[in-house]
Amino acid sequence: MIASVYIELKEGVTDPEGEATKKALHLLGFKNVKKVSSIKVFRIEIDSVSRDEAEKEVIEMCEKLLANPVIHNYRIEWVD
Amino acid sequence: MIASVYIELKEGVTDPEGEATKKALHLLGFKNVKKVSSIKVFRIEIDSVSRDEAEKEVIEMCEKLLANPVIHNYRIEWVD
Repeated sequence: MIASVYIELKEGVTDPEGEATKKALHLLGFKNVKKVSSIKVFRIEIDSVSRDEAEKEVIEMCEKLLANPVIHNYRIEWVD
Repeated sequence: MIASVYIELKEGVTDPEGEATKKALHLLGFKNVKKVSSIKVFRIEIDSVSRDEAEKEVIEMCEKLLANPVIHNYRIEWVD
Protein backbone atom coordinates (compact mmCIF):
# COMPACT_ATOMS: atom_id res chain seq x y z
CA MET A 1 0.00 0.00 0.00
CA ILE A 2 1.16 3.52 -0.73
CA ALA A 3 0.21 6.57 1.33
CA SER A 4 0.94 10.19 0.60
CA VAL A 5 1.36 12.08 3.85
CA TYR A 6 0.95 15.85 3.51
CA ILE A 7 2.69 17.87 6.24
CA GLU A 8 1.49 21.48 6.27
CA LEU A 9 2.15 24.40 8.58
CA LYS A 10 -0.81 25.35 10.74
CA GLU A 11 -2.69 28.56 10.00
CA GLY A 12 -0.75 31.48 11.49
CA VAL A 13 2.65 29.75 11.65
CA THR A 14 5.32 31.64 9.66
CA ASP A 15 6.46 29.86 6.51
CA PRO A 16 9.99 31.15 5.82
CA GLU A 17 10.48 28.87 2.80
CA GLY A 18 7.22 30.03 1.23
CA GLU A 19 8.04 33.67 1.94
CA ALA A 20 11.53 33.37 0.47
CA THR A 21 10.15 31.62 -2.61
CA LYS A 22 7.58 34.37 -3.10
CA LYS A 23 10.28 37.04 -2.82
CA ALA A 24 12.49 35.23 -5.32
CA LEU A 25 9.56 34.88 -7.76
CA HIS A 26 8.86 38.63 -7.46
CA LEU A 27 12.51 39.40 -8.14
CA LEU A 28 12.28 37.23 -11.26
CA GLY A 29 9.35 39.36 -12.46
CA PHE A 30 6.38 37.23 -11.38
CA LYS A 31 4.69 40.18 -9.69
CA ASN A 32 1.21 38.64 -9.73
CA VAL A 33 2.16 35.93 -7.23
CA LYS A 34 0.11 36.71 -4.11
CA LYS A 35 1.19 33.95 -1.76
CA VAL A 36 3.43 30.89 -1.69
CA SER A 37 3.07 28.10 0.89
CA SER A 38 5.48 25.22 1.21
CA ILE A 39 4.19 21.73 1.95
CA LYS A 40 6.15 18.54 2.53
CA VAL A 41 4.91 15.22 1.24
CA PHE A 42 6.21 11.77 2.16
CA ARG A 43 5.14 8.92 -0.07
CA ILE A 44 5.30 5.81 2.08
CA GLU A 45 5.13 2.24 0.80
CA ILE A 46 3.97 -0.05 3.55
CA ASP A 47 3.26 -3.78 3.79
CA SER A 48 0.09 -4.31 5.70
CA VAL A 49 -2.76 -6.80 5.94
CA SER A 50 -5.44 -4.13 5.71
CA ARG A 51 -5.98 -0.48 4.90
CA ASP A 52 -7.23 0.15 8.46
CA GLU A 53 -4.10 -1.37 9.99
CA ALA A 54 -1.90 0.65 7.62
CA GLU A 55 -3.80 3.88 8.33
CA LYS A 56 -3.31 3.37 12.07
CA GLU A 57 0.42 2.85 11.57
CA VAL A 58 0.81 5.90 9.34
CA ILE A 59 -1.01 8.08 11.89
CA GLU A 60 1.44 6.80 14.51
CA MET A 61 4.39 7.64 12.20
CA CYS A 62 3.08 11.19 11.82
CA GLU A 63 2.69 11.63 15.53
CA LYS A 64 6.03 10.11 16.44
CA LEU A 65 8.27 11.42 13.67
CA LEU A 66 6.92 13.09 10.56
CA ALA A 67 4.90 16.01 11.91
CA ASN A 68 5.46 18.38 14.78
CA PRO A 69 2.02 18.79 16.40
CA VAL A 70 2.87 22.29 17.63
CA ILE A 71 3.23 23.71 14.13
CA HIS A 72 2.01 21.10 11.64
CA ASN A 73 -1.24 19.62 10.40
CA TYR A 74 -1.05 16.35 8.52
CA ARG A 75 -3.32 14.62 6.06
CA ILE A 76 -3.08 11.09 4.68
CA GLU A 77 -4.16 10.11 1.16
CA TRP A 78 -3.99 6.54 -0.10
CA VAL A 79 -2.54 6.27 -3.58
CA ASP A 80 -2.73 2.52 -3.84
CA MET B 1 -6.08 31.08 -8.88
CA ILE B 2 -4.23 28.53 -6.77
CA ALA B 3 -1.79 25.99 -8.17
CA SER B 4 -0.12 23.12 -6.34
CA VAL B 5 3.29 22.49 -7.85
CA TYR B 6 4.71 19.03 -7.06
CA ILE B 7 8.50 18.82 -7.27
CA GLU B 8 9.69 15.20 -7.30
CA LEU B 9 13.07 13.60 -7.79
CA LYS B 10 13.48 11.81 -11.11
CA GLU B 11 13.57 8.01 -11.17
CA GLY B 12 17.08 6.87 -10.19
CA VAL B 13 18.11 10.04 -8.35
CA THR B 14 19.08 9.34 -4.71
CA ASP B 15 16.62 10.70 -2.17
CA PRO B 16 18.64 11.20 1.04
CA GLU B 17 15.68 12.68 2.94
CA GLY B 18 13.45 9.74 2.02
CA GLU B 19 16.19 7.26 2.92
CA ALA B 20 16.85 8.91 6.28
CA THR B 21 13.12 9.00 7.05
CA LYS B 22 12.81 5.30 6.21
CA LYS B 23 15.75 4.47 8.50
CA ALA B 24 14.27 6.51 11.34
CA LEU B 25 10.88 4.80 10.91
CA HIS B 26 12.58 1.39 11.06
CA LEU B 27 14.41 2.41 14.23
CA LEU B 28 11.06 3.39 15.73
CA GLY B 29 9.77 -0.11 14.99
CA PHE B 30 7.88 0.45 11.71
CA LYS B 31 9.64 -2.49 10.04
CA ASN B 32 7.01 -2.92 7.31
CA VAL B 33 7.87 0.40 5.65
CA LYS B 34 9.34 -0.57 2.27
CA LYS B 35 10.15 2.81 0.78
CA VAL B 36 9.87 6.50 1.61
CA SER B 37 10.08 9.23 -1.03
CA SER B 38 10.14 12.91 -0.24
CA ILE B 39 8.24 15.37 -2.41
CA LYS B 40 8.09 19.14 -2.19
CA VAL B 41 4.89 21.04 -2.91
CA PHE B 42 4.51 24.77 -3.42
CA ARG B 43 0.98 26.14 -3.25
CA ILE B 44 1.02 29.30 -5.33
CA GLU B 45 -1.73 31.93 -5.37
CA ILE B 46 -1.56 33.90 -8.59
CA ASP B 47 -3.61 36.73 -10.08
CA SER B 48 -4.21 36.02 -13.72
CA VAL B 49 -6.76 36.75 -16.41
CA SER B 50 -7.03 33.11 -17.49
CA ARG B 51 -6.07 29.60 -16.46
CA ASP B 52 -3.96 29.25 -19.64
CA GLU B 53 -2.02 32.41 -18.88
CA ALA B 54 -1.48 31.30 -15.27
CA GLU B 55 -0.39 27.81 -16.34
CA LYS B 56 2.19 29.32 -18.71
CA GLU B 57 3.55 31.47 -15.89
CA VAL B 58 3.72 28.62 -13.39
CA ILE B 59 5.61 26.46 -15.91
CA GLU B 60 8.08 29.34 -16.32
CA MET B 61 8.45 29.58 -12.51
CA CYS B 62 9.26 25.87 -12.34
CA GLU B 63 11.83 26.14 -15.07
CA LYS B 64 13.47 29.28 -13.73
CA LEU B 65 13.38 28.67 -9.98
CA LEU B 66 11.34 25.90 -8.39
CA ALA B 67 12.66 22.75 -10.07
CA ASN B 68 16.13 21.67 -11.11
CA PRO B 69 15.64 20.00 -14.52
CA VAL B 70 18.67 17.76 -13.99
CA ILE B 71 17.13 15.95 -11.02
CA HIS B 72 13.47 16.98 -10.74
CA ASN B 73 10.17 16.33 -12.45
CA TYR B 74 7.36 18.75 -11.77
CA ARG B 75 3.61 18.53 -12.05
CA ILE B 76 1.04 21.30 -11.72
CA GLU B 77 -2.44 20.80 -10.26
CA TRP B 78 -5.01 23.58 -10.09
CA VAL B 79 -6.78 23.76 -6.77
CA ASP B 80 -8.94 26.74 -7.59
